[in-house]
Amino acid sequence: MKKVLVIGGVAAGLKSAAKVRREDPEAQITVLEKGSLISYGACGMPYYVGGLIADVNEFMKTPAGAMRNPSFFKNVKDIDVRTRMLATAINRSGKTVTVKNLETGEEAELPYDKLVIATGATPVKPPLPGIELGGIHQFWHPDDAAMVRTRIDSGEIKTAVIIGAGLVGMEMAEAFKTRGVDVTVVEMKDQVFPAFLDVEIAGAVAKYATENGIKLLTGEKVERFNGNGVVKEVVTDKRSIPADIVILAIGVKPNVELAKAAGLAIGPTGAIAVNEFMETSDPDIYAGGDCVENTNIVSGKKVFAPMGSTANKHGRIIGENISGKRIKFRGVLNTVVVKVLNLNVGKTGLTEREAKELGYEYVTALVAGPDKPHYMPGSKPISIKLVVDAASRKLLGAQAFGEGEVAKRIDVMAAVLTLGGTIDDLFDIDLGYAPPYSSPIDNVAVAANAVMNKLTGKFKGISALTAKEKMDQGTAVFLDVRSPEEYNQIRIANCRGVKNIPLGQLRNRLGELGKDEEIIAFCKISLRGYEAACTLEGAGFENVKVMEGGIVAWPFACEK
Amino acid sequence: MKKVLVIGGVAAGLKSAAKVRREDPEAQITVLEKGSLISYGACGMPYYVGGLIADVNEFMKTPAGAMRNPSFFKNVKDIDVRTRMLATAINRSGKTVTVKNLETGEEAELPYDKLVIATGATPVKPPLPGIELGGIHQFWHPDDAAMVRTRIDSGEIKTAVIIGAGLVGMEMAEAFKTRGVDVTVVEMKDQVFPAFLDVEIAGAVAKYATENGIKLLTGEKVERFNGNGVVKEVVTDKRSIPADIVILAIGVKPNVELAKAAGLAIGPTGAIAVNEFMETSDPDIYAGGDCVENTNIVSGKKVFAPMGSTANKHGRIIGENISGKRIKFRGVLNTVVVKVLNLNVGKTGLTEREAKELGYEYVTALVAGPDKPHYMPGSKPISIKLVVDAASRKLLGAQAFGEGEVAKRIDVMAAVLTLGGTIDDLFDIDLGYAPPYSSPIDNVAVAANAVMNKLTGKFKGISALTAKEKMDQGTAVFLDVRSPEEYNQIRIANCRGVKNIPLGQLRNRLGELGKDEEIIAFCKISLRGYEAACTLEGAGFENVKVMEGGIVAWPFACEK
Repeated sequence: MKKVLVIGGVAAGLKSAAKVRREDPEAQITVLEKGSLISYGACGMPYYVGGLIADVNEFMKTPAGAMRNPSFFKNVKDIDVRTRMLATAINRSGKTVTVKNLETGEEAELPYDKLVIATGATPVKPPLPGIELGGIHQFWHPDDAAMVRTRIDSGEIKTAVIIGAGLVGMEMAEAFKTRGVDVTVVEMKDQVFPAFLDVEIAGAVAKYATENGIKLLTGEKVERFNGNGVVKEVVTDKRSIPADIVILAIGVKPNVELAKAAGLAIGPTGAIAVNEFMETSDPDIYAGGDCVENTNIVSGKKVFAPMGSTANKHGRIIGENISGKRIKFRGVLNTVVVKVLNLNVGKTGLTEREAKELGYEYVTALVAGPDKPHYMPGSKPISIKLVVDAASRKLLGAQAFGEGEVAKRIDVMAAVLTLGGTIDDLFDIDLGYAPPYSSPIDNVAVAANAVMNKLTGKFKGISALTAKEKMDQGTAVFLDVRSPEEYNQIRIANCRGVKNIPLGQLRNRLGELGKDEEIIAFCKISLRGYEAACTLEGAGFENVKVMEGGIVAWPFACEK
Repeated sequence: MKKVLVIGGVAAGLKSAAKVRREDPEAQITVLEKGSLISYGACGMPYYVGGLIADVNEFMKTPAGAMRNPSFFKNVKDIDVRTRMLATAINRSGKTVTVKNLETGEEAELPYDKLVIATGATPVKPPLPGIELGGIHQFWHPDDAAMVRTRIDSGEIKTAVIIGAGLVGMEMAEAFKTRGVDVTVVEMKDQVFPAFLDVEIAGAVAKYATENGIKLLTGEKVERFNGNGVVKEVVTDKRSIPADIVILAIGVKPNVELAKAAGLAIGPTGAIAVNEFMETSDPDIYAGGDCVENTNIVSGKKVFAPMGSTANKHGRIIGENISGKRIKFRGVLNTVVVKVLNLNVGKTGLTEREAKELGYEYVTALVAGPDKPHYMPGSKPISIKLVVDAASRKLLGAQAFGEGEVAKRIDVMAAVLTLGGTIDDLFDIDLGYAPPYSSPIDNVAVAANAVMNKLTGKFKGISALTAKEKMDQGTAVFLDVRSPEEYNQIRIANCRGVKNIPLGQLRNRLGELGKDEEIIAFCKISLRGYEAACTLEGAGFENVKVMEGGIVAWPFACEK
């Protein structure tokens, strides 16, 4: 009878235990969890704080409403889950784990045939003056969520400061905003979502968040917290901000101490090294979830990418392999989808910045357009940026944002990336088409087509960033080919040298433009901008570019 | 200066014309359209009838609000679009087309270097007695939509009968239902969506439609229409149904007469034959859109699959190839997504029926589950059925339905099919995960995993159809492992031999089941059913199956 011991009772740990049980009714399976709660869906916690979810216990329930507590695992799966049990050492030669009961202080040695390390990760706590003040919260455990929500519900929170504009930070910003709290996000890097968005995409997301009431301070460093027992103020290198509550969301680090002390290999990212079978450097010890490193499928590089979805896959593969299979984990795409108020944001594969750092010869395109036919109620714009290997035409990565449907497009591109597909493959997919869901030519196909046209030289794009530089230098003519009505409604602010010639009049008003001028054509989404550029080039203009993404993706100020 | 002549001014025709213009500023491009409207989005018309869209002209507008009429195409794209012009003959030796002006009756010969046939398709009109009565509508053109809506708005329509339970039929059923009209759909075949759903999936869709007020009469043949100038009654082989309006939606046939008369090859499906470059049997004549046949990417077989999305792709490829490129059209997956009230339905690749007919050795799995974490508001179940080649593990096709998000999953599987991927690829995709969008293990990964478990013999599924047969014969024990509360709320109707043992009690109540009995385990979505089967097999029960999809996908009656 095989003894399987699992350290960690959240995602990867319990998943691997459950999988072993399904494969092997005889195995003796024990799960050790140092906390008192197990198997909780931590990713949903911002929505509990935001008021969408009534009861924090929902995160511990099955879809059918049963509490996933130790007696559930005992009765349903015959798995022995022990909470408040801390694994303090792994004795590899004797194949035992030293365990301390956190209630009684007792220690014991538990034997294993196969061991699973699923110790997770811990939020980083910066060693700043005042960090020990009350009201400064990590946000990693249901207890954190319960505490934050209780304080909001009591009405004592008027102002919140979030440190870090990553996933947890921005989701919590939404939660506070939804609850009517004045919220400021302070980010040391000079953009939101620095881990996974290129700067111009981050700019557009930041513009949206700011316009919708989330205060964003990027490129700003927190120096200390002031208060009297309880935090009252966050002091940065630029200002001080009143704060009734502070959320620390500057990232997490893998819990590797136990593995390290046992002499298991730690990878270049600082997380536990595992091979494709999820085995550590000791073949009787597996590791999975937030404490291990992954391989990026596109780049082949090791990455630290803690994700609930990945942890669950790890768990399945560990369970299968403990039961005698040899199943490989292919790796990750560092895919992210995140909601910021009503804006959907996503990324899969490599960003342009990563592609550049890795030395790829790449081409990018950014296209904007409605997510379904414009005549359908609820049609909203989305913008998609592709990063493509120029020689092989292989997709390297994609980013998308908009109030329209983004997650679907990210998932389709993740599928193409997983299978090593090209932009031609992406264009060719026979995607489902019906007006409630999509346009006849889906946004991903439009984006693929834009890259194709760039590769043949037909489509000469210019990014909003470069266009802005030219605008500030006054070296180019900005040609807005929208209707005067659209122009009067909203337009790029402080745009020097702008000409508004509606597309339908352009062929008759060519004389208003100089053939030797650099012309940057655009419209709301730059589809008409592209049409205008084709018209101008057909008429002999030689220096015409299309501003990619148009007004919709313009990350700088507009005036109305 | 190249002369490009296009016959047909809706999707494929105008798209090819626009693409030629972008590639070739010099070309002389003429588009002939026999009707008075061009470039309309016909797919949105049911939503106009249903009241979601205010103005039928929206279908002819660009996203920016400009009318796509001949002067728009002249001014913006320098394309000469002539409406009410009927092409009556193609003279291939002289490279001209005979054109009749439908306003004046005048005839003319127009020369071409390259010709595009985009003549579309026409709804089938069955030669039944009474078919000429007023109030019997085709539904293919904005004029049809305008007429139907005007009649509903006037209040004169109390009862509607739709002939055909395909895409247009069911979308129109939703439209009438939304407008408070009593609606009956009559379908000759014995299921809804006979062209693209397997029978048990169609059964579940039909159950939903019926429970939500759409009357469905399948396996019933219309014999005649009665009325006095205007239709009043539809007579089938089983009954007569009062009808203030009748919509004919039994399918379309490709308009091939012009091509046929010119001696161009017609394919086995009856549509115009084209090669992968969209060339007809005459290399100076291209054809695209609803009048041509396509190749199914999975089976390699020719199919007639008219779709607005496909027509637009054809148009792009034709335009590129006329301009000197050699771009291939890869084919279609016969992908469909369709909304029936609040139920989302989709299909891509092959159905089980098609896989069987084509001689594949396949395995299927049907899984049900929430489309995002159960704790998120708005989480709704969806069911996914996969059809997989048993030896190669390649995905052959997928169907899905549910009130939850279906279109995304269909598109992801369409991507995998396009790239020839396996269920292992499908499982491995690093899909975007965040609670507003999806669960950590997405439904498509669960489905892929179910097929893997079937292939190893670990998961022994039984379809609802086979289970129902066994229930009627009384040969099996039905083991419902939900809680008593769930059981009291809703359960399979007339279920003989059902035992309700909650999963958590099963290990202690094994004595209530016989080891020699055939046991069919299930729950709401059959995840606990699978767990129960694993428990029973572990305890030595040898004839245990899991009813796939559980209560959620059960296509027969339930009682509450």
